Amino acid sequence: MEKKISSAVIKRLPRYYRYLSELLEGGTERISSQELSQKMNVTASQIRQDFNNFGGFGQQGYGYNVAVLREEIGKILGLDQSYQVIIIGAGNLGQALANYAGFEKRGFLVSAIFDINPDKVGNMAGKVEVLDMKDLESYVASHQVDIAALTLPKAKAPEVAADLVKMGVRAFWNFAATDLNLPDNIPVENVHLAESLMRLSYNIVNVSQDS
Amino acid sequence: MEKKISSAVIKRLPRYYRYLSELLEGGTERISSQELSQKMNVTASQIRQDFNNFGGFGQQGYGYNVAVLREEIGKILGLDQSYQVIIIGAGNLGQALANYAGFEKRGFLVSAIFDINPDKVGNMAGKVEVLDMKDLESYVASHQVDIAALTLPKAKAPEVAADLVKMGVRAFWNFAATDLNLPDNIPVENVHLAESLMRLSYNIVNVSQDS
Repeated sequence: MEKKISSAVIKRLPRYYRYLSELLEGGTERISSQELSQKMNVTASQIRQDFNNFGGFGQQGYGYNVAVLREEIGKILGLDQSYQVIIIGAGNLGQALANYAGFEKRGFLVSAIFDINPDKVGNMAGKVEVLDMKDLESYVASHQVDIAALTLPKAKAPEVAADLVKMGVRAFWNFAATDLNLPDNIPVENVHLAESLMRLSYNIVNVSQDS
Repeated sequence: MEKKISSAVIKRLPRYYRYLSELLEGGTERISSQELSQKMNVTASQIRQDFNNFGGFGQQGYGYNVAVLREEIGKILGLDQSYQVIIIGAGNLGQALANYAGFEKRGFLVSAIFDINPDKVGNMAGKVEVLDMKDLESYVASHQVDIAALTLPKAKAPEVAADLVKMGVRAFWNFAATDLNLPDNIPVENVHLAESLMRLSYNIVNVSQDS
């Protein structure tokens, strides 16, 4: 991509993709920015501005072609490729990720899940077997691994992530309540659940009382 | 609070709280904005600006008192209160939330988890029993419920959320891949995992190749 797109726009793209996927599933073939804006509860001008970052996606008199627009946004998001994912930590959260069929539909393929607990090793989590952490290095050496999802305790996460970078893992989906501090060219997407919950309590105390 | 604090500042407060909690656990009593900025990988001026929104928390020559600063930020985040949480959906994700002791430590107390699946009703998830969805209304009528965490399928989530608002639930922690469209005075914190994963693939395709 030639132009630098703002992170605020990038943050909104997956939501567009979600709405367009639902529209397509529901059989909608075309939609105007006006209709889309009502559905998504954002202004039509915001939608047009966001889309103009990518050349506007050719809205005509009839509005956008839903399938084409969805595919274009999918390409920008890298969803025209598939990604091999391993999960580190076979606790409830790791198992929830392994079992979530929605990721596979988007091209994120969970190939293995690892844990140090011998009681868990050998069990199935979704369609994959729980493997022993001591076999992690040989697994990564012999399989393509694009993304590691970290659902292990925070004390271990930065060290395991640094090791995985050395082994060649390209990106991290981090659920551990800590920062990983990896090199800048390694994308990390943090899902800090405790922080999300604190924003909720902030809003309970400060926002809901305003109205 | 008199002054309107920007949502970007609010978004950063939980991260400050996390670092201060770790410093306190590690025995650090005082810290300068300089040291904190190095640890957190943000500028010291950003930290001072953020804290100035709340009167600056009285940094002196020696820096901030970690315990006091943590408590002040905790109060702003509403962590000086406790919250009764119910979880709707006893799948892997619902169970992961029910089992996560870290929430209880912050004052978020899971009192019940609900599911429609008769095979799950009566099982334990963490310290609470899985209750039948048909008992949801009578449960909420007879117990304080501040927050409902939604880990049920997206097709059901908006309807269940609207019902819960009528029953008096004040806030939602939404893991369903849909928008809830609730009244403005009802805080909602969305955790859209599929969208998070799409931002990661975007960064794999666009960012990691730049470097």
